[in-house]
Amino acid sequence: MLNEIRSLNEECGVFGVWGHPDANQLAYFGLHSLQHRGQEGAGIVTNDNGQLLGYRDRGLLADVFRNPENLAQLTGEAAIGHVRYATAGSHGLENIQPFLFDFADGQFALAHNGNLTNAVTLRRQLEDEGAILKSSSDSEILMHLIRRAAGPDLHTKVKTALNQIHGGFAYVLLTQDSLIAMLDPNGFRPLSIGQMANGAYVVASETCALNAVEAIFIRDVQPGEVVTIDRDGLHSDFFTTETTHSICSMEYIYFARPDSDICGINVHAARKRMGKRLAAETGVDADMVIGVPNSSLSAASGYAEASGLPYEMGLVKNQYVGRTFIQPTQALREQGVNRKLAVVKSVVAGKRIVLVDDSIVRGTTSKHIVKRLKEAGALEVHLRVASPPLKYPCFYGIDIQTREELIASQQSVAQMCETIGADSLAFLSQEGLIDAIGLHQDAPYSGLCMAYFNGDYPTPLYDYEADYQASLKQDKE
Amino acid sequence: MLNEIRSLNEECGVFGVWGHPDANQLAYFGLHSLQHRGQEGAGIVTNDNGQLLGYRDRGLLADVFRNPENLAQLTGEAAIGHVRYATAGSHGLENIQPFLFDFADGQFALAHNGNLTNAVTLRRQLEDEGAILKSSSDSEILMHLIRRAAGPDLHTKVKTALNQIHGGFAYVLLTQDSLIAMLDPNGFRPLSIGQMANGAYVVASETCALNAVEAIFIRDVQPGEVVTIDRDGLHSDFFTTETTHSICSMEYIYFARPDSDICGINVHAARKRMGKRLAAETGVDADMVIGVPNSSLSAASGYAEASGLPYEMGLVKNQYVGRTFIQPTQALREQGVNRKLAVVKSVVAGKRIVLVDDSIVRGTTSKHIVKRLKEAGALEVHLRVASPPLKYPCFYGIDIQTREELIASQQSVAQMCETIGADSLAFLSQEGLIDAIGLHQDAPYSGLCMAYFNGDYPTPLYDYEADYQASLKQDKE
Amino acid sequence: MLNEIRSLNEECGVFGVWGHPDANQLAYFGLHSLQHRGQEGAGIVTNDNGQLLGYRDRGLLADVFRNPENLAQLTGEAAIGHVRYATAGSHGLENIQPFLFDFADGQFALAHNGNLTNAVTLRRQLEDEGAILKSSSDSEILMHLIRRAAGPDLHTKVKTALNQIHGGFAYVLLTQDSLIAMLDPNGFRPLSIGQMANGAYVVASETCALNAVEAIFIRDVQPGEVVTIDRDGLHSDFFTTETTHSICSMEYIYFARPDSDICGINVHAARKRMGKRLAAETGVDADMVIGVPNSSLSAASGYAEASGLPYEMGLVKNQYVGRTFIQPTQALREQGVNRKLAVVKSVVAGKRIVLVDDSIVRGTTSKHIVKRLKEAGALEVHLRVASPPLKYPCFYGIDIQTREELIASQQSVAQMCETIGADSLAFLSQEGLIDAIGLHQDAPYSGLCMAYFNGDYPTPLYDYEADYQASLKQDKE
Amino acid sequence: MLNEIRSLNEECGVFGVWGHPDANQLAYFGLHSLQHRGQEGAGIVTNDNGQLLGYRDRGLLADVFRNPENLAQLTGEAAIGHVRYATAGSHGLENIQPFLFDFADGQFALAHNGNLTNAVTLRRQLEDEGAILKSSSDSEILMHLIRRAAGPDLHTKVKTALNQIHGGFAYVLLTQDSLIAMLDPNGFRPLSIGQMANGAYVVASETCALNAVEAIFIRDVQPGEVVTIDRDGLHSDFFTTETTHSICSMEYIYFARPDSDICGINVHAARKRMGKRLAAETGVDADMVIGVPNSSLSAASGYAEASGLPYEMGLVKNQYVGRTFIQPTQALREQGVNRKLAVVKSVVAGKRIVLVDDSIVRGTTSKHIVKRLKEAGALEVHLRVASPPLKYPCFYGIDIQTREELIASQQSVAQMCETIGADSLAFLSQEGLIDAIGLHQDAPYSGLCMAYFNGDYPTPLYDYEADYQASLKQDKE
Repeated sequence: MLNEIRSLNEECGVFGVWGHPDANQLAYFGLHSLQHRGQEGAGIVTNDNGQLLGYRDRGLLADVFRNPENLAQLTGEAAIGHVRYATAGSHGLENIQPFLFDFADGQFALAHNGNLTNAVTLRRQLEDEGAILKSSSDSEILMHLIRRAAGPDLHTKVKTALNQIHGGFAYVLLTQDSLIAMLDPNGFRPLSIGQMANGAYVVASETCALNAVEAIFIRDVQPGEVVTIDRDGLHSDFFTTETTHSICSMEYIYFARPDSDICGINVHAARKRMGKRLAAETGVDADMVIGVPNSSLSAASGYAEASGLPYEMGLVKNQYVGRTFIQPTQALREQGVNRKLAVVKSVVAGKRIVLVDDSIVRGTTSKHIVKRLKEAGALEVHLRVASPPLKYPCFYGIDIQTREELIASQQSVAQMCETIGADSLAFLSQEGLIDAIGLHQDAPYSGLCMAYFNGDYPTPLYDYEADYQASLKQDKE
Repeated sequence: MLNEIRSLNEECGVFGVWGHPDANQLAYFGLHSLQHRGQEGAGIVTNDNGQLLGYRDRGLLADVFRNPENLAQLTGEAAIGHVRYATAGSHGLENIQPFLFDFADGQFALAHNGNLTNAVTLRRQLEDEGAILKSSSDSEILMHLIRRAAGPDLHTKVKTALNQIHGGFAYVLLTQDSLIAMLDPNGFRPLSIGQMANGAYVVASETCALNAVEAIFIRDVQPGEVVTIDRDGLHSDFFTTETTHSICSMEYIYFARPDSDICGINVHAARKRMGKRLAAETGVDADMVIGVPNSSLSAASGYAEASGLPYEMGLVKNQYVGRTFIQPTQALREQGVNRKLAVVKSVVAGKRIVLVDDSIVRGTTSKHIVKRLKEAGALEVHLRVASPPLKYPCFYGIDIQTREELIASQQSVAQMCETIGADSLAFLSQEGLIDAIGLHQDAPYSGLCMAYFNGDYPTPLYDYEADYQASLKQDKE
Repeated sequence: MLNEIRSLNEECGVFGVWGHPDANQLAYFGLHSLQHRGQEGAGIVTNDNGQLLGYRDRGLLADVFRNPENLAQLTGEAAIGHVRYATAGSHGLENIQPFLFDFADGQFALAHNGNLTNAVTLRRQLEDEGAILKSSSDSEILMHLIRRAAGPDLHTKVKTALNQIHGGFAYVLLTQDSLIAMLDPNGFRPLSIGQMANGAYVVASETCALNAVEAIFIRDVQPGEVVTIDRDGLHSDFFTTETTHSICSMEYIYFARPDSDICGINVHAARKRMGKRLAAETGVDADMVIGVPNSSLSAASGYAEASGLPYEMGLVKNQYVGRTFIQPTQALREQGVNRKLAVVKSVVAGKRIVLVDDSIVRGTTSKHIVKRLKEAGALEVHLRVASPPLKYPCFYGIDIQTREELIASQQSVAQMCETIGADSLAFLSQEGLIDAIGLHQDAPYSGLCMAYFNGDYPTPLYDYEADYQASLKQDKE
Repeated sequence: MLNEIRSLNEECGVFGVWGHPDANQLAYFGLHSLQHRGQEGAGIVTNDNGQLLGYRDRGLLADVFRNPENLAQLTGEAAIGHVRYATAGSHGLENIQPFLFDFADGQFALAHNGNLTNAVTLRRQLEDEGAILKSSSDSEILMHLIRRAAGPDLHTKVKTALNQIHGGFAYVLLTQDSLIAMLDPNGFRPLSIGQMANGAYVVASETCALNAVEAIFIRDVQPGEVVTIDRDGLHSDFFTTETTHSICSMEYIYFARPDSDICGINVHAARKRMGKRLAAETGVDADMVIGVPNSSLSAASGYAEASGLPYEMGLVKNQYVGRTFIQPTQALREQGVNRKLAVVKSVVAGKRIVLVDDSIVRGTTSKHIVKRLKEAGALEVHLRVASPPLKYPCFYGIDIQTREELIASQQSVAQMCETIGADSLAFLSQEGLIDAIGLHQDAPYSGLCMAYFNGDYPTPLYDYEADYQASLKQDKE
């Protein structure tokens, strides 16, 4: 139950632009570069001289706007957009963002990336007060809080509402006369600001979206900050001073696009350093390095470079997989018919392989790959993971499973190695990860959230606390 | 005109299976792994106890078979399939293969990869004799020739017909009681045979399709060979003894999937060796190596390994590009809004870059990438091409432009360097290419067709001869 | 503004079933027979042992459930469904019903046909109290009121909430253990109850939906009634005793399907009687009677029968119109290219025609048809309308335009005749309409709402009162 | 086998226009009005200054051209188009017309309505001479014959070819400089010529398509005529003088649109006269007349008028049926859930009904309707059929089943009545049909083909003769 609610707003992408006549198209191209953050649904709301216009639907951005008229009708010089991640139980139409609210006294559109840790409590409180929440989304909760907040103006109400919510959140809010970007006090989720040649401002979950619309990166939104963009330019304010930077380390490890910079650190470069450090920490005698495509390729090339081993393409991913509607029958699957990942037999046969993966969640994929490499003739497969063991769930917006599902929370490294069938298994150390990312902020773990590895959550867990403690206790028993 | 006809059957993929109850599904998964060879149309014909059943349509394989019923209805234990490459002027429904012919005396299905050099002449002869060709495809020509051939049985007729056609061709023919695979006397196009655990035979344009259905590679179809598979097993015959191996070098350079083996040589490994040799031949002082995704990544990693320079991800390709229906407006395109390829500014800024590409055709893409790298702050961009300059068109099945469109046939390397805007430009030598591929056959150029680089066509050009000579003459003037 | 809000819930169709293992399919077939009541969107919510499951989307029912999986996943033995009418400005995804509400203490699904006259006031009150309404729908308002109502149980709360809303409404509410049908105190909208062979109860906007699922008609839901169906059977209660029957006369005139019975009166038969009475009241010397397809055919055949004139097919409607995406260019339209309605020249040429239409709203369609009949050679066109002149808007759920748009509120019959270009024009009298329908209830106008014709609204107009009075005043000036 | 080949080109619609800048759109709207003649596939070929451009695909016209670009690309001032009827075994892409032929010496596009009686023989002859026919269509046969014909020019070749084919055919042929319309020597199929305001000529299977594009009817194409339209205007020639008019009576009875005129006779009016004559011939004491929608409504209204009985709407057809993808489960079907045709219980209960149908093929639909009327309470159901008993198959282009499937060829009227469950059954006489249509031509049966009723085929049956004789013999045994 908790799990179901928790996962609803995870791993999405948000985008906003203010001050460009092609706002709808810019939102489209910005979101297109953020498509890896969510493939279940997408939407755009524009502001045409104070009137908000929206369109959203299930599917990839390109499907939602397959009919060009759907995009063309979204006129105006400002826009926000959202791509939504698929999670079980939240496939309803009503959860696709941005939400567009029509009040008697004005219109608002809101989009969200992250996860609130006190959403259940807030939802219950709101319902007890007679509120009706039509979606399972944390966006709707924030809008309720803003509407119920006391205060002379919207800005005050927004700040009041932001102080009532906890967890990881990056919101973009489009009103009839402004675009507002907000980040949680820990800055768990990335959110960057850029500017286009004509002066238009852009905000986006990742800098790859700034690049996609040829905007120049200005700066990241800061933890606890409320950035308001309107006809007078960009204004900064903070809804709280109690901030500590805890940017999500998983964004660096596998989630963000390699061409994005998070807090000034390029993701590909960070991954490559993780691979190098991994080589240094866990070196093994082998013939070649192979990465699991696509997200592990940076780390694998780093490993290869540091180890002096050749980096080879022993696994190839079919780039057309996303479009396939026909699945192999069970019979064919058992015969090994696999349409996603191909093992290059002539590369791996008779070779001792270092297989670099970015992370291990359940271990099933790793087990499958190791098995197929061996079937293809690999002599040895040494699995090297460019992150520490994932032992604890994320409550701030990454869809990491419950503890029960995380193999590293249930088994020792030796056990995992046996389960997976590798000849050896080793992980990057926590220090290695922190050093490789190289954030160097004056905050715990240099400014990273490392809770998935060590359980050291930067904030109280609120609604999740009881379940989490129970799961820890269960492990001990 | 010639050009239009010439390009019709180029760069396709064929697949066949005989002797498996899931023939339709195997064809689907085999073709899926060959999707890179053609995205315009696809089709499958099966043989259900002597009755041929087919379905084909425009679009990607997954679109053609989006309705699972379209595939499920193709019952039977044998199948052939085809994926079709998009070329201007040949978008008609009638060109999508396999072709299914219903004669009063039997049914045939035929699919083709390659290009005939005497198609225009044959077409004219056939039409003069009253024939009507409904498609622009070389497959239909072969079927006409088979039907008109004298001989006691199909096998004889097929051999007679094959001796009438010239050029590059790999055909699969499904009859009511056999599956026949045929290769031109030079073996320009790849065609391999595999076998599944249950004994079923598989033929495919690339070995990646054998792997996709978990078939074991047996051997390649030989130049001039006719392989017949029927209930009695596999039979080999040759329609000619005048054969010389001239496998297309462009298959190794950019066209085939890296996990395929062509004539026993793994494509990725060959590309990596090209990159290494390129580094040895054209080394330059720089900070990093960047490959143009995706086809140049193997060569780039080879270059990096050989040069000792780090291999970095300075360019990222959006994996969702294929599905986008909305193009940037001209205004946005001029502002640099680009949805396909992203430059990673933080990686390239302030750096001297070796940019490795697999080949240069018109030079426009290279020019665009160099420009964007420089805008992103690259200090120097040294373009290194992992193949010799492309100066001559292909008439055997690769869609290489006419000489006028090949920049290397019009400009010197120095001129090209200036046109492209690179700080230096160098190509792999012809010897380097031959050595890197490492085919070592007892044939000219070790068994490779090198005509694109040196104009040394292994066969007469027939219908293309006059135009080709005119283009050479024009160049001299 | 008022107009925009007013039109949102008009002319929809609702369906509910309780107690059948194929509830999802029954809802599908029931809604399919109600498709004429709304084509913009559709949805179904089922109750599977207390868990509500829903699916809804834009488009016709067949489009929404084109993928059979969308319907198959809606398991359970009870269901409600909705088809939605297209009105300007309400195309948002969020307005497609049934709405599915997930509260911490339970789930509810609600669907609505009708229009509330105090929706603006209620919406404002709710927003003032902090409520957020995500749709423009009256359904959401009722749910807010139910949640905020005091009372020991749901039934009490529902009755309290129903007493707060005014206007025309037919709601079906699906809870975790019951199906509830509710009708406004005037019974403006039709709502009938049937029973299937297995005992399952069905409620639907029209009896044609009962027939579609082979349910036997039991009775109509009564004005002010709350019918609750649960595992113990059907229970009746009334939320008010101040009821007067005022069933919408427009349902009989053009909106309902001819095979439906409303309050025991068959719609086709009523229309035929209207035509007969029209002939008696407005007879004219002519050669034939032609009806405007499809809704006027019953009236036209009645006119023909009573007048003794032959009933001919002088106008033919293209049955494939709904599927056409390509519209004639303006140039072609001016040349008369018309893809919807065909005039049969050989039938009408040289003839004096009685053209029977069911009603006249703006008069533009009538003008167009008369013009085309004359172009086809009709000597005279006498327009006979099987309802009295439409002079006043509907506030109870029919999408009749504002007074300014109703030609009969702006022009005399003589003026209209000239505008339309007919040779004569006559309408059915109010008495004629009442007699022809033959409801004979002990209520004003025999139980019909005749306000569209005489402005005698059966209830206060609440939010619409001021605008309405202003429009009357404007007319006088 | 014969049957399979025979049915391939039946019941299609053709359209052609010459001399209008919007030829593509006119073809679209013309075909749209002919959609009732074929729903399986559609296509259009235009002539843009001598270059032919085509697009065709499976599905309704609106589906084929759902993407407006598909139509917009078909530029030029002339066009032909085709809508294709669905028959078992001919669903292949290759059968969708118009066919576009690209020869070295020119382009041709051809579309066909009808059926050749010597197609099998011609096909075998052509194949024996080495021809390859890629479709099962009679259009391809004609093109082969034209190509093989001797003669100084196309016109001569066309005439030669037309003399080789037998059966019913209406062809439109688009060449690079002309539009040619051709009709078989019996004029089995309708084909009319019209002219637009700008002088453009239009040919179409039915006059409703002339009306749809606002063309004035000029005249019908005559049996044995070849009409050539080019820049010099319209030219008439005949390929044979041995002609006898035998227009298909089934076009009048049920196939054509009621607003079309065939040979100067309006279809609706003819049907109404059939109904009147039917009443005169087969009168019965009853309370009302009901027609089977939609094609029997004209006849039913005629019956009602002549009999003095009221014409009532006791059956209603759901206008949205075509779009439904979900079928009732067998269980629901047995419970009577029917989404196509609704019985209006309140109309029919307790009544003695005359049920008018246009024709009876297998009798299964009649049986079903009678059963449902009785279940709804009808006291008596007297089935009256507005055509004589269908006893013999059609070989000229109407998809009438083999003799075994025609109930009237297997049972007496009394037996049929019992099978169907009606209280009485009567058919229109052959003389009644001929009189009612009123063609009055100087030819057998006034110019009608009556073979379906009396086996008097106006031509030899060629390839069908043997099977036909065998079926007659079988009946006798």
